[in-house]
Amino acid sequence: MSGSTFGELFRVTNFGESHGPAIGCVIDGCPPGLRLSEADIQPELDRRRPGTSRHVTQRNEPDAVKILSGVYEGVTTGTPICLLIENTDQRSKDYGNILDTFRPGHADYTYWRKYGLRDPRGGGRSSARLTAPMVGAGAVARKWLREQFGTEFRGCMTQLGDIAIPFEGWEHVGQNPFFAANAGKIGELEDYMDALRKAGDSVGARIRVEATGVPVGLGEPLFDKLDADIAYALMGINAVKGVEIGEGFGVVAQRGTQHGDELSRDGFASNNAGGVLGGISTGQDIVASIAIKPTSSIRSPKASIDRAGNPTVVETFGRHDPCVGIRATPIAEAMLALVLMDHALRHRAQCGDVQLPVAPIASQRLPAG
Amino acid sequence: MSGSTFGELFRVTNFGESHGPAIGCVIDGCPPGLRLSEADIQPELDRRRPGTSRHVTQRNEPDAVKILSGVYEGVTTGTPICLLIENTDQRSKDYGNILDTFRPGHADYTYWRKYGLRDPRGGGRSSARLTAPMVGAGAVARKWLREQFGTEFRGCMTQLGDIAIPFEGWEHVGQNPFFAANAGKIGELEDYMDALRKAGDSVGARIRVEATGVPVGLGEPLFDKLDADIAYALMGINAVKGVEIGEGFGVVAQRGTQHGDELSRDGFASNNAGGVLGGISTGQDIVASIAIKPTSSIRSPKASIDRAGNPTVVETFGRHDPCVGIRATPIAEAMLALVLMDHALRHRAQCGDVQLPVAPIASQRLPAG
Amino acid sequence: MSGSTFGELFRVTNFGESHGPAIGCVIDGCPPGLRLSEADIQPELDRRRPGTSRHVTQRNEPDAVKILSGVYEGVTTGTPICLLIENTDQRSKDYGNILDTFRPGHADYTYWRKYGLRDPRGGGRSSARLTAPMVGAGAVARKWLREQFGTEFRGCMTQLGDIAIPFEGWEHVGQNPFFAANAGKIGELEDYMDALRKAGDSVGARIRVEATGVPVGLGEPLFDKLDADIAYALMGINAVKGVEIGEGFGVVAQRGTQHGDELSRDGFASNNAGGVLGGISTGQDIVASIAIKPTSSIRSPKASIDRAGNPTVVETFGRHDPCVGIRATPIAEAMLALVLMDHALRHRAQCGDVQLPVAPIASQRLPAG
Amino acid sequence: MSGSTFGELFRVTNFGESHGPAIGCVIDGCPPGLRLSEADIQPELDRRRPGTSRHVTQRNEPDAVKILSGVYEGVTTGTPICLLIENTDQRSKDYGNILDTFRPGHADYTYWRKYGLRDPRGGGRSSARLTAPMVGAGAVARKWLREQFGTEFRGCMTQLGDIAIPFEGWEHVGQNPFFAANAGKIGELEDYMDALRKAGDSVGARIRVEATGVPVGLGEPLFDKLDADIAYALMGINAVKGVEIGEGFGVVAQRGTQHGDELSRDGFASNNAGGVLGGISTGQDIVASIAIKPTSSIRSPKASIDRAGNPTVVETFGRHDPCVGIRATPIAEAMLALVLMDHALRHRAQCGDVQLPVAPIASQRLPAG
Repeated sequence: MSGSTFGELFRVTNFGESHGPAIGCVIDGCPPGLRLSEADIQPELDRRRPGTSRHVTQRNEPDAVKILSGVYEGVTTGTPICLLIENTDQRSKDYGNILDTFRPGHADYTYWRKYGLRDPRGGGRSSARLTAPMVGAGAVARKWLREQFGTEFRGCMTQLGDIAIPFEGWEHVGQNPFFAANAGKIGELEDYMDALRKAGDSVGARIRVEATGVPVGLGEPLFDKLDADIAYALMGINAVKGVEIGEGFGVVAQRGTQHGDELSRDGFASNNAGGVLGGISTGQDIVASIAIKPTSSIRSPKASIDRAGNPTVVETFGRHDPCVGIRATPIAEAMLALVLMDHALRHRAQCGDVQLPVAPIASQRLPAG
Repeated sequence: MSGSTFGELFRVTNFGESHGPAIGCVIDGCPPGLRLSEADIQPELDRRRPGTSRHVTQRNEPDAVKILSGVYEGVTTGTPICLLIENTDQRSKDYGNILDTFRPGHADYTYWRKYGLRDPRGGGRSSARLTAPMVGAGAVARKWLREQFGTEFRGCMTQLGDIAIPFEGWEHVGQNPFFAANAGKIGELEDYMDALRKAGDSVGARIRVEATGVPVGLGEPLFDKLDADIAYALMGINAVKGVEIGEGFGVVAQRGTQHGDELSRDGFASNNAGGVLGGISTGQDIVASIAIKPTSSIRSPKASIDRAGNPTVVETFGRHDPCVGIRATPIAEAMLALVLMDHALRHRAQCGDVQLPVAPIASQRLPAG
Repeated sequence: MSGSTFGELFRVTNFGESHGPAIGCVIDGCPPGLRLSEADIQPELDRRRPGTSRHVTQRNEPDAVKILSGVYEGVTTGTPICLLIENTDQRSKDYGNILDTFRPGHADYTYWRKYGLRDPRGGGRSSARLTAPMVGAGAVARKWLREQFGTEFRGCMTQLGDIAIPFEGWEHVGQNPFFAANAGKIGELEDYMDALRKAGDSVGARIRVEATGVPVGLGEPLFDKLDADIAYALMGINAVKGVEIGEGFGVVAQRGTQHGDELSRDGFASNNAGGVLGGISTGQDIVASIAIKPTSSIRSPKASIDRAGNPTVVETFGRHDPCVGIRATPIAEAMLALVLMDHALRHRAQCGDVQLPVAPIASQRLPAG
Repeated sequence: MSGSTFGELFRVTNFGESHGPAIGCVIDGCPPGLRLSEADIQPELDRRRPGTSRHVTQRNEPDAVKILSGVYEGVTTGTPICLLIENTDQRSKDYGNILDTFRPGHADYTYWRKYGLRDPRGGGRSSARLTAPMVGAGAVARKWLREQFGTEFRGCMTQLGDIAIPFEGWEHVGQNPFFAANAGKIGELEDYMDALRKAGDSVGARIRVEATGVPVGLGEPLFDKLDADIAYALMGINAVKGVEIGEGFGVVAQRGTQHGDELSRDGFASNNAGGVLGGISTGQDIVASIAIKPTSSIRSPKASIDRAGNPTVVETFGRHDPCVGIRATPIAEAMLALVLMDHALRHRAQCGDVQLPVAPIASQRLPAG
């Protein structure tokens, strides 16, 4: 149980390090009969890929995915699907100076204490680069869920540092490097990022992610509640420090008269619950938000110690994003898809079929961030 | 994988319904040689128990725990420990009127859609009563962690509805029914609760929970990060809608220059991370917060539908807490203990021993809620 | 992973010791909607129960099972089913003399070395008494499989010590204490057992177990092959030292021209494979055999050591069976049922439905032992 | 749970098909700090490799293994180790004629019924080629167990068809293509195989496999007994139809006075148990035997049906071994190593350390087959 496998029935086992020969994953449990090729997966990887704007790391990786197994004549066979992504831009010289010191905010200290050694090249296993195979596996899950139930996933940035990004429309998300659902704010966000980069500093971000067209009845009571598994999936993304379902921390000050979503013949009248009641999906949209901490690698010097325990100072000179949250949206969508995929299979194992909503479920309020 | 088992190596399998003959759990994987009797477990159950103040449900249950297996002559043998709690106050007549309708905010609708049937007596399996065996299992984990590493768990309410409860000192927590770490606020909280009860309404709460004396190196990279598993554990508690680690959603507006905790010979200078870096414990205190929604069962009527899809109105007449968050503190502590226990065993499986912090870890700021 | 849970999707977690207050199990993952009461389970427990003839242990236990959860108004709800069997005849004084010595052939030495301590009362956790909850869980699986697919389970003893028991007909099995499918051999078997008991000795046995009406397609390629899981399930029964599928060890001397079962429009022409090809069920009868070692507790003295390592001699004076294999048939049937149940759920998780054989599958040869 | 992962703590996830681009596995849970390179793994793969004598398939594959992750500067880091073996000799034309028919004794029929489709190239996923990554993972486990405890693994063929191969000495095993522990029998075995090949027929084999230097206390009571997991591991090898531990089916006719292994200050006086009591290792040698069925692909025609259910005849013209058992010895050793490795980690998770035998354990009888 060393934690490199996600899911119980749609099991994704991730391997690789930032600067090793390759990264990838093995998906065991994909249903047979799904049409699948690299062309179904590559576009999602491209959404997550570095080097696509001046606001994200300039590491130049094509992140080209290859399917090594589990597909015959363009169709999944029910056997494990291995996805392989070769690391082509390794430039490990950038990281040579950090071998002996612990960068504040990074996993250097904890890996070294846990294992007694660590792979320092680009953060090794703790690099956000390892989210690429998750996005790849997520693309497989998304395709199956879309074809079976019409489930779709989408997300947007709702706050960057102290700038809130009001929701205007999903159509804007693909038109800017921030995954912002707002066309008018982009200039302000770009100036903010440029100033941060100049100052050698970084900020956090808030991301909202949703699933629509969700079957009713997914999730297991008690421990493997759908929302508990979503929290596990999203908190496990690098740099995430908070997860909310539905109204999230807003529920603390809500009243019961206001919170409980009423039902009518037309479905639910509101979606404070975020699509989950008692750990089981209601058929409404699943809504979750995450908080992402500021990038830990910054140009400004910070105090630290070396492996011998002596004081030192850490500065980062390599290429880094002033906000790791910028590329988090497709990752969060992928993780949400993996959770729903796994629970769809778990549900049909025990209950034999998957339930679509009987009544139309009323649309929820527009997202407010 | 129907989700009634928590943990990989310290596995707790929970069973029972609110109004069945008994509830309980089976703990598989407890190390042998731990002195254990009911007297080690009962006090934690008593902290969670209903009926202890006028602000919580008046259901009168002794919640007396019995150990059915796994202990011989007062010592754990390494074989499964079954904890049994008989249900003595079942009064299922209170719930008869809800058999055919779906209470807004409750799991009635989703259970019925998932399984095609449901046990309506007191919420059946979805009742918060099922947290009692978790608290029991948590007491076993707490005892082992305390004896091995000196790890301790504590928690407090930091907000009730819209009333923030400033932290004054841990010594206050056991002196009031709210688990508030503040002596001067109690009168205000009591008045607030009394007004809510009179109004037939309810509110949410915010709870902070911590572990101290935590070994370094617990947590698995990638998916089973320590913070991901904490999020899973805490979001799985009934009514929880948000989880934060360390600064939580506060990190969104933080700068990198401010967030990353610096290290010195004396340990970490701050604890924005909440005791986890790269998914692995740093040896600092683990700090997490949760948001609990307002009680869904309220006296005020809400619109709903019945099983045939016809409109109806739901009112609750039975005994209910105006804030389910009041009893959540010992539950959250127990879940945090189960996570650390499991990861302590996982760590020593792979790495062979458990590391205590080498340098003294500087105390963190007092909790601000 | 302390090994007290059987199955991945129909998960049975077993607890208890031979002379503790109770034994039992929690079944998680049972499909909802199955009519179930104690009356469905008790008859299988009665088949396994001690004290039913002079050839088995005289321990007098009613083994009365109680359902503590997971059933509402006589129907399974999809939540965990806890089965509890109280220990009523504990007579632990019988076992007092073995606390300090290691009985040859028993688990005394290995438990003590593994855990550093052990519960000596009646073998504690290593007692064959712990097969009772397995038989109980098996009864639930059998009922569901029968109702869904018409699957049935049966078994018989095919050899007792050096006496082969030729197969005559299944109708004989319930008519004698040996589960022998042969009416004419009973006298010889009884004399043989009486002589053994007089001599203070014991013998082994060979048991054959079958499933009929098996869906096609159960079993997972590579590791969780259906036959691999059957081997795991049957070898895990106390005292089993060998497992065969189909022709078993007979295949060593077979030729390829003879072994591979030919197919025609009418199904398979033979069943050398025992109903499994490539780890997946063919729709033919599943056929397996097990070898059970002679009872280790015998009146004849054997050399051993005590906990200090000093030589000693062990004799057993308590009640014991001269052949533990006599009661093994219902246990082996139950374990086979648990394997098929689990794989039926696993199959429908991935493939969405369960396949019944399309062509009639030709009957296999009568069992030869 | 689609069954492509072996083990609970030393988890090996296998992927690939016989004629896809590559096969391999991901090992999660390997302890950090083990010196490891391809040179530690390749020799074991070479022992299993086809094309090494005229008695095994002439498929010409170098089976060159590459380590893609989990090793830094020649040492394992504690993160997943991906082993990749490219398929270089795919010649899928050989198998074109079997796309539409079900070869008797093969997995063709069951895969097609389970998944609704299948990869026919070389047996796809059901090919014995997929044992190569198991042997690779086994080499990693063997190295760690050897360095930690001095555990070693060895095996030999003890019967080929109806020719018993008396044990003479382990030194002979590496000197002949049969893994026979007997120098004088080789000529007879070669003639026997040549005659079979000429006749277009095949035979089964019996293999014995052992572990020496085994720690005491490995194995979990109840379900995950060490012998149950060995049975699962060995029965899961392609073509295996029977598994024995210690005296195996020989125990049926044994008496209790004879079977139970006596203990003295010098250890156990015999090893009928095969090194396992109550599911837990005794510190003696682990001894197991397996029965392997005759190769199903033979030149002689056999009756079958096609996918439309029409009668047909199947003949095999490609390269095939007249006895698949010939290459099974290193595979069985590897699977036994994976079981012990996993249980060594499981043991130290719960019990904190691993016990070596305190007293010298008397050597067992020489293997008799």
